[in-house]
Order: sequence, then structure tokens, then C-alpha cells
Amino acid sequence: MEIIQNVDSLRNRVEFLRKERKYIGLVPTMGYFHDGHLNLMRLSVSECDVTVVSNYVNPAQFDRRDDLESYPINFERDKALAEEIGVDIMFYPQTLYQSDHKTWVTVEKLTDVLCGRSRPGHFKGVATVVCKLFNIVNPHVAYFGQKDAQQAAVIEQMIKDLNFDIRLVLSPIIREHDGLAMSSRNVQLTPEHRKKAPVFYEQLQLIDKKLLPDLSNKEMLIEQAKKTLENIPGVRVDYIEVLSWPHLEIPDKTSHRLLIAGAVFFGNVRLIDNIIKEL
Amino acid sequence: MEIIQNVDSLRNRVEFLRKERKYIGLVPTMGYFHDGHLNLMRLSVSECDVTVVSNYVNPAQFDRRDDLESYPINFERDKALAEEIGVDIMFYPQTLYQSDHKTWVTVEKLTDVLCGRSRPGHFKGVATVVCKLFNIVNPHVAYFGQKDAQQAAVIEQMIKDLNFDIRLVLSPIIREHDGLAMSSRNVQLTPEHRKKAPVFYEQLQLIDKKLLPDLSNKEMLIEQAKKTLENIPGVRVDYIEVLSWPHLEIPDKTSHRLLIAGAVFFGNVRLIDNIIKEL
Repeated sequence: MEIIQNVDSLRNRVEFLRKERKYIGLVPTMGYFHDGHLNLMRLSVSECDVTVVSNYVNPAQFDRRDDLESYPINFERDKALAEEIGVDIMFYPQTLYQSDHKTWVTVEKLTDVLCGRSRPGHFKGVATVVCKLFNIVNPHVAYFGQKDAQQAAVIEQMIKDLNFDIRLVLSPIIREHDGLAMSSRNVQLTPEHRKKAPVFYEQLQLIDKKLLPDLSNKEMLIEQAKKTLENIPGVRVDYIEVLSWPHLEIPDKTSHRLLIAGAVFFGNVRLIDNIIKEL
Repeated sequence: MEIIQNVDSLRNRVEFLRKERKYIGLVPTMGYFHDGHLNLMRLSVSECDVTVVSNYVNPAQFDRRDDLESYPINFERDKALAEEIGVDIMFYPQTLYQSDHKTWVTVEKLTDVLCGRSRPGHFKGVATVVCKLFNIVNPHVAYFGQKDAQQAAVIEQMIKDLNFDIRLVLSPIIREHDGLAMSSRNVQLTPEHRKKAPVFYEQLQLIDKKLLPDLSNKEMLIEQAKKTLENIPGVRVDYIEVLSWPHLEIPDKTSHRLLIAGAVFFGNVRLIDNIIKEL
């Protein structure tokens, strides 16, 4: 596996590979790999001639400084794991922003709800860095995890609106044995909260199971889920919502798919999870 | 010359040409060509294997509905002129925005001054459509006129910040025999205002000539120019300013280049012009 730190080197390398008619897959990550990331890489390796994994903790998408500063990093481990899977290139830039950076990509409406409401500026940082990565790597296909469902909806809209010639693949959520969605943040949980964390997914499943076709009990189910979660000491629900997928609007009878999504603080650690429900 | 109206057709055509190792030039325009446009096209034809001219009146960059509605159009004439110069492809889309368009590119600071202050949202529309054209055409080089100097500064910043692999060429202002900068809007001037319009450039030249090396008489010269222009009946100065080029900041002793720029209403017609001064 090649490790490339420089933007122009990566650009030239991929341009050469594209001229050789190689099909290029990109897996954008912030490192500290878990099985969710590895699954995206395996998918790309199986579908593409060349897999590029970017490993960059993007400061622009953090709305809290303490969250950025405590974000876990382990490059040596990441390198070994990606290499084992057969990743061809790891892009590991020192920074992607020059000191006079002034340009931002914003996606309206889709970013006003869910995590966009709780984390001002987060999706502006995400859309901007992904736009940069798309321009640097110029992949045929990019792999995103369903765990960050809103992120995927935002990037899909950006691809369409800005005419990127890139296919987005959304890959299912990978979970621990007890159902907790894999996340780089899980290691930050206290042992007590780690034990209780699966209740989050259980509550989303309960909404999925009990939701009536006319959605008339939606608010009641959401309230019950919030109450159950907030009965755990140190737990605060940021939001639990049911929206249309992928438009993220108030669902109605015309909605074909729903996103049942939540964000829950276990102590200082903010976890997100979701279920996409076909109607 | 090929006329291509469809995004995917253009994309496929250019992708084929790039694989043939052709060097691609893009001249983004809003049509109604004058010698300024034709000069950009000639430059591209002389430097590139393939010249693509986009001809699209971008609604997103108009801050006034009446300005958009009165913007002059003459496709048959444009086609004949471009063909004569040797343009290879004219991209003439019906629209570049889908009804659910939500994504915008903004460039901070550079767009807070000059035309950015007078025309809210204008440069957001410009940056977004140019980002789209860059992704659709994927050119090696893009040609912009110095008449829209702030636009060029904004696009150059966007290219750098979003990692587009595109070279921007800035081409000098082309003028009528009496000094008036060529513009698609000049045809909208009354005969009286057309006669007086060259005073605008004369005043910019006067600032250029009389400006002291320490810039101490800058405000005085600007005030004199404004006064002279506003003595013409029906004329209102939007702004005349002297900023550092290309950073568009208050100039000081460290500035190597200055932009002496103005925007002046002759009746309802807003004209812009500028001089880039080397120090």
C-alpha cells in the first residue's frame, strides 16, 4: 500500500491510473478504523481496480473544540488494517486547508434538521472537505456508511447539484454483537455507558416495529424512546426523529422510505444511529 | 462547431477528447458576445487543442429580476461569431439547475467588497455555476476577462480552496474606440449615456495617474471621480474603490498591485470597469 501525503502527488498518481483505464474507488474516513470502515474498504476493493482511502481528521466539521481534540487517532493500526484488506493508496495529508481558506460548500434544507440542527457548521465542513477530496482524487465511485445517513444524503445532493461524475455507494451499518453501531467514539464511553449503549438501537428498532402505516403514533413512540433512554444515568437525548428518506422532510402517505434516526449523549460522548425503513 | 445542450453528452465528449490527450480550454460566458468574449475565445483557440464555450445566462447570479429579464440574448449571432473564431464546442444548456437545487459555493471575504456588497448573492451564483461548469467540462484551463476582476479573484480562490486542477487565465479588458469597456450591457445605454460613458474609464485612469506612492490622496481622488461622474444627468456611482489585488483588502505599503475599480449606473444600466496597477 502506498502512503501519499501530498495533494499533487496523489492527483498525479490517480491521473496516471485513470489513463490506464483503472476504475477508482474512494473511501473518505477520519481514521481510527473499526469494522464499519473496513467494510467500506472491502466493498471498494471488491468493486474497483484501485482503492484510495483518505485518512484525515477534518477540523472544519467539528463544532466543539474538545470533541476535535479528543478524537482518537492511531495511524499505525489504521495502516496495518487497510493494508491487510488490500487498499492500494492511503491519502494521509497533514492538512487540507491553507491558512487563507475562504471557500465553503453548503447544502440547504437537508442540513437544517437532525445533526445539522445540533451541530452548526458541521455539514458545511463535511461537504467542503468531500468536495475537495472528490477534486483531488477524482474517483469513479465513493463509499459512505449508512451510520452517517444524513451525511450521505447531503453528499448525494451535492454530487447532483454540482455535477460531480461520481457514484455514491451507501453501505449498511456494522454493529457490535450487542447491536451498538460501530463508531470511533465508542472507545470514549465509560464501561457503564458502554454496557447500556445498546438500548439506543433497541429503541430505534422498537419505533421501526411499532410504527403504524399512517404514522399516527410516531410522536408517541419517539417520546417513549426518549424517556427510556433518559432514564439511564448520564444520558441525554439530542434528538430522535422520523423523516422521509432521502429528502429528510416530515413524512406523509407519499413517503416510500423513512429514516428513523437519533443522536444520544452518553456522558460527553455523542452517538448516532439510524434505521432506513421501506414502506 | 458542435452545439451541445445536454450535460452528459458534453461530459462524454470531453472525456473522450481528454483520453485522446487533447488540451481542453473553457470560456464560460452568458452569451451576447462582444470583442471581450471573442478575445477570450481566440486566446483559448490559440493555446488549446479543444475550446469549449459555455453560453448560459445564469439566473442564480442576478440579484435583480428586471436585470435578468432584460439581459440581451442573440444565439444565432453568438453561434456564427464563435464558429468563425474556431471554437470547437458550444455548450448551450436549457438550464443548469434542477428544481430541487440546494447546494451553493460561497467564497468569504473576497465577496464582501465591491460588487459583492452591492449585489447580494451575486458571487454565490457565480461561484456555484462555475463550479458546476468545471465539473461538467473538466477543462485544463479556463479563461476569464479582467473586466470582471472580482469574479476572477473569487474563482481563483475557489480553484485553490476546492483543489480544482484548473489553470485560470485572466485576459485584459477590451475597449471601444472611445475607451468604454466592452460589455453586453452597453447596448442598453441611451444614446446620451453612451456618449458620456467613456468618462467612467477616464476617471479611473486619472486615479491611476495621480495616485501618490504612499496612497495618501486615494480618498480625495475617489471623491473627485465620483463628483465628476455624478455631474452627468442620470448617473449614480455605486462605488469607486482602490483595493489590493488580488486579495481585495485595504491597500498598504506592502501591496504590490492595486485594483482601481468602479461600478456606475447610467440610468438603469450598471457598468463596471477597472485598472490593475503595478506598484
